Amino acid sequence: MNLLLLQRDDFDAGGHARITGPRAKHIRDVLRAAPGDRLRIGLLDGPRGHGEVQAVQDDTVALACSFESAPPPRPVVDLLLALPRPKVLKRLWSQLAALGVGHLLLTNAARVERNYFDTHVLDPAFFTPLLIEGLQQAQDTRLPQVTVHRRFRPLVEDELDARSDAAVRLVADPSGDTRVGGALAGAPTGRILLAVGPEGGWVPFELDLLRARGFIAVRMGARTLRTDTACLALLALVHDARGNG
Amino acid sequence: MNLLLLQRDDFDAGGHARITGPRAKHIRDVLRAAPGDRLRIGLLDGPRGHGEVQAVQDDTVALACSFESAPPPRPVVDLLLALPRPKVLKRLWSQLAALGVGHLLLTNAARVERNYFDTHVLDPAFFTPLLIEGLQQAQDTRLPQVTVHRRFRPLVEDELDARSDAAVRLVADPSGDTRVGGALAGAPTGRILLAVGPEGGWVPFELDLLRARGFIAVRMGARTLRTDTACLALLALVHDARGNG
Repeated sequence: MNLLLLQRDDFDAGGHARITGPRAKHIRDVLRAAPGDRLRIGLLDGPRGHGEVQAVQDDTVALACSFESAPPPRPVVDLLLALPRPKVLKRLWSQLAALGVGHLLLTNAARVERNYFDTHVLDPAFFTPLLIEGLQQAQDTRLPQVTVHRRFRPLVEDELDARSDAAVRLVADPSGDTRVGGALAGAPTGRILLAVGPEGGWVPFELDLLRARGFIAVRMGARTLRTDTACLALLALVHDARGNG
Repeated sequence: MNLLLLQRDDFDAGGHARITGPRAKHIRDVLRAAPGDRLRIGLLDGPRGHGEVQAVQDDTVALACSFESAPPPRPVVDLLLALPRPKVLKRLWSQLAALGVGHLLLTNAARVERNYFDTHVLDPAFFTPLLIEGLQQAQDTRLPQVTVHRRFRPLVEDELDARSDAAVRLVADPSGDTRVGGALAGAPTGRILLAVGPEGGWVPFELDLLRARGFIAVRMGARTLRTDTACLALLALVHDARGNG
Protein backbone atom coordinates (compact mmCIF):
# COMPACT_ATOMS: atom_id res chain seq x y z
CA MET A 1 0.00 0.00 0.00
CA ASN A 2 1.70 3.19 -1.22
CA LEU A 3 -1.17 5.45 -0.34
CA LEU A 4 -3.95 4.99 2.19
CA LEU A 5 -7.33 5.71 0.65
CA LEU A 6 -9.89 7.22 2.98
CA GLN A 7 -13.59 7.70 2.50
CA ARG A 8 -15.88 10.42 3.82
CA ASP A 9 -17.18 8.21 6.61
CA ASP A 10 -13.65 7.70 7.96
CA PHE A 11 -13.83 11.28 9.25
CA ASP A 12 -15.41 12.45 12.47
CA ALA A 13 -17.26 15.72 12.85
CA GLY A 14 -14.03 17.50 13.76
CA GLY A 15 -12.33 16.54 10.50
CA HIS A 16 -10.05 13.90 12.00
CA ALA A 17 -9.85 10.47 10.45
CA ARG A 18 -10.33 7.39 12.60
CA ILE A 19 -9.22 4.26 10.75
CA THR A 20 -10.38 0.83 11.87
CA GLY A 21 -10.37 -2.70 10.50
CA PRO A 22 -7.78 -4.17 8.11
CA ARG A 23 -6.38 -0.75 7.20
CA ALA A 24 -5.67 0.03 10.86
CA LYS A 25 -4.02 -3.37 11.21
CA HIS A 26 -1.89 -2.65 8.13
CA ILE A 27 -0.80 0.75 9.48
CA ARG A 28 0.08 -0.81 12.82
CA ASP A 29 1.67 -4.12 11.79
CA VAL A 30 3.12 -3.52 8.33
CA LEU A 31 3.87 0.19 8.23
CA ARG A 32 4.64 0.12 11.99
CA ALA A 33 3.49 3.71 12.21
CA ALA A 34 3.90 5.60 15.46
CA PRO A 35 2.46 8.94 16.62
CA GLY A 36 4.11 11.75 14.66
CA ASP A 37 4.66 9.66 11.49
CA ARG A 38 3.28 11.02 8.24
CA LEU A 39 1.43 8.72 5.86
CA ARG A 40 0.55 9.35 2.25
CA ILE A 41 -3.22 9.41 2.06
CA GLY A 42 -5.92 10.14 -0.43
CA LEU A 43 -9.63 10.78 -0.34
CA LEU A 44 -11.52 8.39 -2.61
CA ASP A 45 -12.26 10.36 -5.81
CA GLY A 46 -10.71 13.37 -4.12
CA PRO A 47 -7.29 14.89 -3.51
CA ARG A 48 -4.16 13.26 -2.17
CA GLY A 49 -2.46 14.48 0.98
CA HIS A 50 -0.76 13.49 4.20
CA GLY A 51 -2.05 12.10 7.46
CA GLU A 52 -0.09 12.60 10.66
CA VAL A 53 -0.54 9.71 13.05
CA GLN A 54 -1.93 10.99 16.32
CA ALA A 55 -2.66 7.75 18.11
CA VAL A 56 -2.38 4.03 17.44
CA GLN A 57 -4.62 1.84 19.53
CA ASP A 58 -5.51 -1.81 19.28
CA ASP A 59 -7.94 -1.45 16.45
CA THR A 60 -7.99 2.25 15.65
CA VAL A 61 -5.54 4.72 14.16
CA ALA A 62 -6.22 8.44 14.49
CA LEU A 63 -4.89 10.75 11.76
CA ALA A 64 -4.75 14.52 11.35
CA CYS A 65 -5.17 14.99 7.61
CA SER A 66 -4.21 17.67 5.13
CA PHE A 67 -5.05 17.52 1.45
CA GLU A 68 -3.84 19.02 -1.82
CA SER A 69 -6.14 21.53 -3.43
CA ALA A 70 -7.32 19.33 -6.31
CA PRO A 71 -7.75 15.62 -7.06
CA PRO A 72 -5.32 13.96 -9.49
CA PRO A 73 -6.52 13.91 -13.09
CA ARG A 74 -8.75 11.04 -14.16
CA PRO A 75 -6.78 8.41 -16.12
CA VAL A 76 -6.90 9.33 -19.79
CA VAL A 77 -8.03 5.88 -21.04
CA ASP A 78 -11.44 4.25 -21.01
CA LEU A 79 -11.51 0.51 -21.62
CA LEU A 80 -14.22 -1.33 -23.56
CA LEU A 81 -13.49 -4.92 -22.59
CA ALA A 82 -15.27 -8.06 -23.71
CA LEU A 83 -16.18 -9.72 -20.42
CA PRO A 84 -13.39 -12.14 -19.49
CA ARG A 85 -14.12 -15.34 -17.64
CA PRO A 86 -14.53 -14.75 -13.90
CA LYS A 87 -11.19 -16.23 -12.88
CA VAL A 88 -9.36 -13.86 -15.23
CA LEU A 89 -11.46 -10.81 -14.34
CA LYS A 90 -10.83 -11.45 -10.66
CA ARG A 91 -7.10 -11.03 -11.27
CA LEU A 92 -7.58 -8.01 -13.52
CA TRP A 93 -9.49 -5.62 -11.26
CA SER A 94 -6.59 -4.36 -9.19
CA GLN A 95 -4.19 -4.30 -12.11
CA LEU A 96 -6.56 -2.24 -14.27
CA ALA A 97 -7.02 0.26 -11.45
CA ALA A 98 -3.26 0.40 -10.90
CA LEU A 99 -2.43 0.97 -14.56
CA GLY A 100 -5.18 3.57 -14.77
CA VAL A 101 -8.61 3.34 -16.38
CA GLY A 102 -11.23 6.09 -16.27
CA HIS A 103 -14.32 4.11 -17.27
CA LEU A 104 -14.38 0.35 -17.67
CA LEU A 105 -17.18 -0.87 -19.92
CA LEU A 106 -17.57 -4.64 -19.71
CA THR A 107 -19.49 -5.94 -22.69
CA ASN A 108 -20.89 -9.08 -24.16
CA ALA A 109 -19.45 -10.30 -27.48
CA ALA A 110 -19.98 -13.32 -29.72
CA ARG A 111 -17.13 -15.21 -28.08
CA VAL A 112 -18.09 -14.32 -24.50
CA GLU A 113 -19.87 -17.16 -22.75
CA ARG A 114 -23.25 -16.08 -21.36
CA ASN A 115 -22.66 -17.56 -17.93
CA TYR A 116 -19.72 -15.21 -17.41
CA PHE A 117 -22.33 -12.59 -16.47
CA ASP A 118 -23.65 -14.70 -13.59
CA THR A 119 -20.75 -14.22 -11.26
CA HIS A 120 -20.07 -12.53 -7.96
CA VAL A 121 -16.92 -11.12 -9.58
CA LEU A 122 -19.21 -8.52 -11.23
CA ASP A 123 -20.70 -7.48 -7.90
CA PRO A 124 -19.45 -4.03 -6.82
CA ALA A 125 -19.22 -5.35 -3.27
CA PHE A 126 -16.66 -7.84 -4.59
CA PHE A 127 -14.68 -5.70 -7.02
CA THR A 128 -14.60 -2.28 -5.34
CA PRO A 129 -12.09 -3.39 -2.68
CA LEU A 130 -9.90 -4.80 -5.48
CA LEU A 131 -10.07 -1.54 -7.40
CA ILE A 132 -9.16 0.34 -4.23
CA GLU A 133 -6.22 -2.02 -3.71
CA GLY A 134 -4.98 -1.09 -7.19
CA LEU A 135 -5.44 2.63 -6.55
CA GLN A 136 -3.53 2.40 -3.28
CA GLN A 137 -0.72 0.61 -5.12
CA ALA A 138 -0.58 3.27 -7.85
CA GLN A 139 -1.15 6.23 -5.50
CA ASP A 140 -4.28 7.24 -7.32
CA THR A 141 -7.63 8.23 -5.83
CA ARG A 142 -9.90 8.06 -8.88
CA LEU A 143 -12.08 4.97 -8.71
CA PRO A 144 -12.73 3.62 -12.21
CA GLN A 145 -16.37 3.83 -13.22
CA VAL A 146 -17.61 0.34 -14.09
CA THR A 147 -20.60 -0.50 -16.26
CA VAL A 148 -21.77 -3.89 -17.52
CA HIS A 149 -23.44 -4.27 -20.93
CA ARG A 150 -25.17 -7.47 -21.93
CA ARG A 151 -25.76 -6.42 -25.54
CA PHE A 152 -22.83 -5.39 -27.70
CA ARG A 153 -24.63 -3.86 -30.65
CA PRO A 154 -26.89 -1.36 -28.85
CA LEU A 155 -23.94 -0.40 -26.68
CA VAL A 156 -21.71 0.40 -29.62
CA GLU A 157 -24.38 1.80 -31.92
CA ASP A 158 -26.51 3.81 -29.54
CA GLU A 159 -24.90 4.32 -26.15
CA LEU A 160 -21.19 4.71 -26.66
CA ASP A 161 -21.21 8.36 -27.71
CA ALA A 162 -23.01 9.30 -24.52
CA ARG A 163 -20.85 7.09 -22.32
CA SER A 164 -17.43 8.09 -23.57
CA ASP A 165 -16.23 11.45 -24.81
CA ALA A 166 -12.95 9.94 -26.05
CA ALA A 167 -11.33 11.80 -28.92
CA VAL A 168 -9.64 8.63 -30.19
CA ARG A 169 -11.03 5.12 -30.37
CA LEU A 170 -8.73 2.13 -30.73
CA VAL A 171 -9.55 -1.54 -31.09
CA ALA A 172 -6.89 -4.19 -30.61
CA ASP A 173 -6.90 -6.69 -33.46
CA PRO A 174 -4.27 -8.62 -35.40
CA SER A 175 -5.72 -7.08 -38.59
CA GLY A 176 -4.68 -3.64 -37.35
CA ASP A 177 -2.70 -1.56 -39.77
CA THR A 178 -1.00 0.62 -37.20
CA ARG A 179 0.52 0.42 -33.75
CA VAL A 180 -0.65 2.24 -30.63
CA GLY A 181 2.06 4.89 -30.83
CA GLY A 182 1.29 5.57 -34.47
CA ALA A 183 -2.46 5.80 -33.88
CA LEU A 184 -1.95 8.27 -31.04
CA ALA A 185 0.74 10.37 -32.73
CA GLY A 186 -1.92 12.57 -34.26
CA ALA A 187 -3.90 12.88 -31.01
CA PRO A 188 -1.55 14.19 -28.33
CA THR A 189 -4.41 15.20 -26.00
CA GLY A 190 -7.98 14.16 -25.25
CA ARG A 191 -9.36 10.93 -23.91
CA ILE A 192 -8.81 7.51 -25.49
CA LEU A 193 -11.27 4.64 -25.68
CA LEU A 194 -9.53 1.28 -26.08
CA ALA A 195 -11.48 -1.85 -27.06
CA VAL A 196 -10.10 -5.30 -26.21
CA GLY A 197 -11.90 -8.43 -27.38
CA PRO A 198 -12.51 -11.84 -25.82
CA GLU A 199 -10.26 -14.89 -26.01
CA GLY A 200 -10.45 -15.84 -29.68
CA GLY A 201 -10.91 -12.22 -30.70
CA TRP A 202 -13.74 -10.13 -32.09
CA VAL A 203 -15.86 -11.71 -34.83
CA PRO A 204 -15.94 -9.86 -38.19
CA PHE A 205 -19.37 -8.31 -37.48
CA GLU A 206 -18.11 -6.80 -34.23
CA LEU A 207 -14.92 -5.52 -35.80
CA ASP A 208 -16.83 -3.98 -38.68
CA LEU A 209 -19.23 -2.27 -36.29
CA LEU A 210 -16.38 -0.90 -34.20
CA ARG A 211 -14.57 0.37 -37.29
CA ALA A 212 -17.79 1.97 -38.51
CA ARG A 213 -18.03 3.78 -35.17
CA GLY A 214 -14.58 5.27 -35.56
CA PHE A 215 -12.37 2.67 -33.91
CA ILE A 216 -8.89 2.40 -35.43
CA ALA A 217 -7.56 -1.17 -35.39
CA VAL A 218 -4.17 -1.40 -33.73
CA ARG A 219 -1.97 -4.47 -33.58
CA MET A 220 0.69 -5.39 -31.08
CA GLY A 221 2.91 -7.75 -33.03
CA ALA A 222 3.10 -11.37 -34.08
CA ARG A 223 2.50 -12.86 -30.65
CA THR A 224 -1.05 -13.76 -29.66
CA LEU A 225 -1.61 -12.82 -26.04
CA ARG A 226 -4.19 -13.92 -23.52
CA THR A 227 -6.87 -11.25 -23.03
CA ASP A 228 -5.61 -10.20 -19.63
CA THR A 229 -2.00 -9.94 -20.74
CA ALA A 230 -3.05 -8.02 -23.85
CA CYS A 231 -5.13 -5.66 -21.75
CA LEU A 232 -2.26 -4.77 -19.46
CA ALA A 233 0.20 -4.48 -22.36
CA LEU A 234 -2.12 -2.17 -24.32
CA LEU A 235 -2.85 0.05 -21.34
CA ALA A 236 0.90 0.37 -20.78
CA LEU A 237 1.42 1.34 -24.43
CA VAL A 238 -1.39 3.89 -24.41
CA HIS A 239 -0.23 5.53 -21.18
CA ASP A 240 3.36 5.51 -22.38
CA ALA A 241 2.43 7.08 -25.72
CA ARG A 242 0.91 9.91 -23.72
CA GLY A 243 3.95 10.25 -21.52
CA ASN A 244 2.30 9.00 -18.36
CA GLY A 245 1.25 5.59 -17.01
CA MET B 1 -3.76 -23.09 -27.49
CA ASN B 2 -2.85 -21.35 -30.73
CA LEU B 3 -0.01 -23.69 -31.58
CA LEU B 4 0.63 -27.24 -30.43
CA LEU B 5 4.18 -27.65 -29.18
CA LEU B 6 5.73 -31.03 -29.80
CA GLN B 7 8.91 -32.50 -28.42
CA ARG B 8 11.37 -34.94 -29.97
CA ASP B 9 9.91 -37.88 -28.09
CA ASP B 10 6.47 -37.25 -29.55
CA PHE B 11 7.79 -38.65 -32.84
CA ASP B 12 8.06 -42.27 -33.81
CA ALA B 13 10.92 -43.68 -35.87
CA GLY B 14 9.00 -42.96 -39.07
CA GLY B 15 8.75 -39.23 -38.33
CA HIS B 16 5.06 -39.24 -37.41
CA ALA B 17 3.90 -37.63 -34.20
CA ARG B 18 1.73 -39.56 -31.78
CA ILE B 19 0.19 -37.23 -29.21
CA THR B 20 -1.19 -38.61 -25.95
CA GLY B 21 -2.35 -37.23 -22.62
CA PRO B 22 -3.89 -33.79 -22.03
CA ARG B 23 -2.78 -32.48 -25.43
CA ALA B 24 -4.60 -35.33 -27.20
CA LYS B 25 -7.67 -34.61 -25.09
CA HIS B 26 -7.45 -30.91 -26.03
CA ILE B 27 -7.16 -31.72 -29.75
CA ARG B 28 -10.12 -34.08 -29.53
CA ASP B 29 -12.46 -32.21 -27.18
CA VAL B 30 -11.64 -28.52 -27.61
CA LEU B 31 -10.30 -28.26 -31.16
CA ARG B 32 -12.63 -31.11 -32.22
CA ALA B 33 -10.08 -32.08 -34.86
CA ALA B 34 -10.91 -34.78 -37.36
CA PRO B 35 -8.72 -36.67 -39.84
CA GLY B 36 -7.63 -34.32 -42.60
CA ASP B 37 -7.62 -31.19 -40.38
CA ARG B 38 -4.44 -29.16 -40.24
CA LEU B 39 -3.15 -27.89 -36.89
CA ARG B 40 -0.52 -25.25 -36.28
CA ILE B 41 2.34 -27.00 -34.55
CA GLY B 42 5.87 -26.25 -33.43
CA LEU B 43 8.85 -28.23 -32.28
CA LEU B 44 10.08 -27.09 -28.87
CA ASP B 45 13.09 -24.81 -29.55
CA GLY B 46 12.69 -25.68 -33.22
CA PRO B 47 10.67 -24.56 -36.22
CA ARG B 48 6.94 -24.03 -36.54
CA GLY B 49 4.86 -25.96 -39.05
CA HIS B 50 1.63 -27.81 -39.65
CA GLY B 51 0.38 -31.21 -38.56
CA GLU B 52 -2.27 -33.01 -40.55
CA VAL B 53 -4.50 -35.13 -38.37
CA GLN B 54 -4.35 -38.73 -39.53
CA ALA B 55 -6.25 -40.48 -36.78
CA VAL B 56 -8.02 -39.54 -33.55
CA GLN B 57 -8.44 -42.37 -31.09
CA ASP B 58 -9.48 -42.41 -27.47
CA ASP B 59 -6.22 -41.20 -26.06
CA THR B 60 -3.97 -40.74 -29.07
CA VAL B 61 -3.84 -38.34 -32.00
CA ALA B 62 -1.61 -39.17 -34.96
CA LEU B 63 -0.19 -36.27 -36.99
CA ALA B 64 1.80 -36.07 -40.22
CA CYS B 65 4.05 -33.06 -39.65
CA SER B 66 5.84 -30.60 -41.89
CA PHE B 67 8.06 -27.83 -40.59
CA GLU B 68 9.43 -24.50 -41.75
CA SER B 69 13.13 -24.42 -42.51
CA ALA B 70 14.21 -22.39 -39.46
CA PRO B 71 13.00 -21.77 -35.92
CA PRO B 72 11.51 -18.36 -35.07
CA PRO B 73 14.01 -15.85 -33.70
CA ARG B 74 14.68 -15.90 -29.99
CA PRO B 75 12.83 -13.06 -28.19
CA VAL B 76 15.05 -10.00 -28.15
CA VAL B 77 14.71 -9.31 -24.40
CA ASP B 78 16.40 -10.96 -21.43
CA LEU B 79 14.86 -10.24 -18.03
CA LEU B 80 16.79 -9.84 -14.80
CA LEU B 81 14.02 -10.10 -12.24
CA ALA B 82 14.26 -9.86 -8.48
CA LEU B 83 12.60 -13.07 -7.33
CA PRO B 84 8.91 -12.33 -6.71
CA ARG B 85 6.99 -14.13 -4.02
CA PRO B 86 5.87 -17.60 -5.12
CA LYS B 87 2.21 -16.70 -5.59
CA VAL B 88 3.13 -13.90 -7.99
CA LEU B 89 5.79 -15.88 -9.84
CA LYS B 90 3.32 -18.71 -10.36
CA ARG B 91 1.08 -16.34 -12.30
CA LEU B 92 3.98 -14.80 -14.21
CA TRP B 93 5.53 -17.86 -15.87
CA SER B 94 3.10 -18.26 -18.73
CA GLN B 95 2.72 -14.52 -19.26
CA LEU B 96 6.47 -13.96 -19.50
CA ALA B 97 6.78 -16.76 -22.04
CA ALA B 98 3.83 -15.35 -24.00
CA LEU B 99 5.18 -11.80 -24.10
CA GLY B 100 8.61 -13.14 -25.06
CA VAL B 101 11.74 -13.47 -22.92
CA GLY B 102 14.99 -15.03 -24.12
CA HIS B 103 16.71 -15.62 -20.80
CA LEU B 104 15.05 -15.10 -17.43
CA LEU B 105 17.54 -14.49 -14.62
CA LEU B 106 15.84 -14.65 -11.22
CA THR B 107 17.95 -12.96 -8.60
CA ASN B 108 18.08 -12.23 -4.93
CA ALA B 109 17.93 -8.58 -3.85
CA ALA B 110 17.84 -6.74 -0.53
CA ARG B 111 14.05 -6.62 -0.54
CA VAL B 112 13.55 -10.25 -1.62
CA GLU B 113 12.64 -12.49 1.28
CA ARG B 114 15.03 -15.42 1.62
CA ASN B 115 12.30 -18.03 1.90
CA TYR B 116 11.07 -17.14 -1.60
CA PHE B 117 13.86 -19.40 -2.86
CA ASP B 118 12.45 -22.44 -1.06
CA THR B 119 9.49 -23.01 -3.29
CA HIS B 120 8.32 -25.62 -5.75
CA VAL B 121 7.46 -22.72 -8.08
CA LEU B 122 11.19 -22.59 -8.91
CA ASP B 123 11.28 -26.27 -9.83
CA PRO B 124 11.61 -26.78 -13.61
CA ALA B 125 9.14 -29.64 -13.34
CA PHE B 126 6.63 -27.08 -12.08
CA PHE B 127 7.36 -24.12 -14.32
CA THR B 128 8.24 -25.72 -17.66
CA PRO B 129 4.62 -26.69 -18.43
CA LEU B 130 3.59 -23.09 -17.62
CA LEU B 131 6.24 -21.68 -19.95
CA ILE B 132 5.05 -24.08 -22.67
CA GLU B 133 1.47 -22.92 -22.09
CA GLY B 134 2.63 -19.33 -22.73
CA LEU B 135 4.55 -20.33 -25.85
CA GLN B 136 1.52 -22.18 -27.23
CA GLN B 137 -0.58 -19.08 -26.58
CA ALA B 138 1.89 -16.79 -28.37
CA GLN B 139 2.72 -19.27 -31.16
CA ASP B 140 6.37 -19.32 -30.22
CA THR B 141 8.64 -22.35 -29.83
CA ARG B 142 11.62 -20.86 -28.00
CA LEU B 143 11.57 -21.93 -24.37
CA PRO B 144 12.99 -19.15 -22.16
CA GLN B 145 16.22 -20.13 -20.46
CA VAL B 146 15.77 -19.80 -16.69
CA THR B 147 18.55 -19.39 -14.14
CA VAL B 148 18.29 -18.69 -10.41
CA HIS B 149 20.89 -16.57 -8.60
CA ARG B 150 21.04 -16.41 -4.83
CA ARG B 151 23.63 -13.63 -4.70
CA PHE B 152 22.99 -10.36 -6.47
CA ARG B 153 26.44 -8.79 -6.33
CA PRO B 154 28.52 -11.63 -7.84
CA LEU B 155 25.85 -12.08 -10.48
CA VAL B 156 25.95 -8.45 -11.57
CA GLU B 157 29.67 -7.87 -11.07
CA ASP B 158 31.15 -11.13 -12.32
CA GLU B 159 28.67 -13.26 -14.23
CA LEU B 160 26.37 -11.00 -16.16
CA ASP B 161 28.69 -10.29 -19.08
CA ALA B 162 29.04 -14.02 -19.73
CA ARG B 163 25.33 -14.70 -19.29
CA SER B 164 23.89 -11.95 -21.46
CA ASP B 165 25.27 -10.46 -24.64
CA ALA B 166 22.66 -7.68 -24.58
CA ALA B 167 23.73 -4.48 -26.32
CA VAL B 168 21.48 -2.36 -24.11
CA ARG B 169 20.80 -2.72 -20.40
CA LEU B 170 17.80 -1.07 -18.80
CA VAL B 171 16.73 -0.96 -15.17
CA ALA B 172 13.23 0.10 -14.22
CA ASP B 173 13.29 2.68 -11.45
CA PRO B 174 11.28 5.80 -10.59
CA SER B 175 14.58 7.74 -10.57
CA GLY B 176 14.97 7.00 -14.29
CA ASP B 177 15.69 9.97 -16.48
CA THR B 178 14.35 8.50 -19.69
CA ARG B 179 11.55 6.28 -20.94
CA VAL B 180 11.88 2.89 -22.62
CA GLY B 181 11.32 4.28 -26.11
CA GLY B 182 13.90 6.99 -25.57
CA ALA B 183 16.49 4.58 -24.19
CA LEU B 184 16.05 2.25 -27.16
CA ALA B 185 15.90 4.95 -29.84
CA GLY B 186 19.68 4.81 -30.21
CA ALA B 187 19.77 1.00 -30.23
CA PRO B 188 17.47 -0.23 -32.99
CA THR B 189 19.00 -3.71 -33.05
CA GLY B 190 20.74 -6.10 -30.67
CA ARG B 191 19.54 -7.78 -27.52
CA ILE B 192 18.16 -5.94 -24.50
CA LEU B 193 18.60 -6.85 -20.85
CA LEU B 194 15.83 -5.45 -18.67
CA ALA B 195 16.14 -5.40 -14.87
CA VAL B 196 13.00 -5.25 -12.71
CA GLY B 197 13.29 -4.98 -8.94
CA PRO B 198 11.31 -6.46 -6.05
CA GLU B 199 8.22 -4.99 -4.42
CA GLY B 200 9.55 -1.85 -2.74
CA GLY B 201 12.19 -1.41 -5.43
CA TRP B 202 15.95 -1.74 -5.63
CA VAL B 203 17.97 -0.33 -2.71
CA PRO B 204 20.50 2.41 -3.58
CA PHE B 205 23.46 -0.02 -3.48
CA GLU B 206 21.80 -2.26 -6.06
CA LEU B 207 20.84 0.61 -8.30
CA ASP B 208 24.35 2.06 -8.12
CA LEU B 209 25.84 -1.31 -9.01
CA LEU B 210 23.49 -1.76 -11.95
CA ARG B 211 24.23 1.76 -13.22
CA ALA B 212 27.96 1.08 -12.86
CA ARG B 213 27.51 -2.01 -15.02
CA GLY B 214 25.90 -0.04 -17.81
CA PHE B 215 22.21 -0.20 -16.93
CA ILE B 216 20.21 2.88 -17.95
CA ALA B 217 17.44 3.72 -15.50
CA VAL B 218 14.06 4.01 -17.21
CA ARG B 219 10.85 5.17 -15.60
CA MET B 220 7.28 4.39 -16.52
CA GLY B 221 5.37 7.33 -15.10
CA ALA B 222 3.90 8.52 -11.85
CA ARG B 223 2.02 5.33 -11.03
CA THR B 224 3.72 2.75 -8.83
CA LEU B 225 2.92 -0.72 -10.14
CA ARG B 226 3.12 -4.14 -8.55
CA THR B 227 6.20 -6.06 -9.72
CA ASP B 228 4.24 -8.42 -11.93
CA THR B 229 2.22 -5.66 -13.58
CA ALA B 230 5.39 -3.61 -14.09
CA CYS B 231 7.14 -6.58 -15.63
CA LEU B 232 4.42 -7.18 -18.19
CA ALA B 233 4.09 -3.45 -18.96
CA LEU B 234 7.85 -3.04 -19.47
CA LEU B 235 8.13 -6.12 -21.69
CA ALA B 236 5.28 -4.74 -23.80
CA LEU B 237 7.05 -1.38 -24.11
CA VAL B 238 10.39 -2.95 -25.03
CA HIS B 239 8.89 -5.25 -27.66
CA ASP B 240 6.80 -2.42 -29.05
CA ALA B 241 9.81 -0.08 -29.26
CA ARG B 242 11.43 -2.72 -31.44
CA GLY B 243 8.36 -3.10 -33.61
CA ASN B 244 7.47 -6.58 -32.39
CA GLY B 245 5.89 -8.00 -29.22
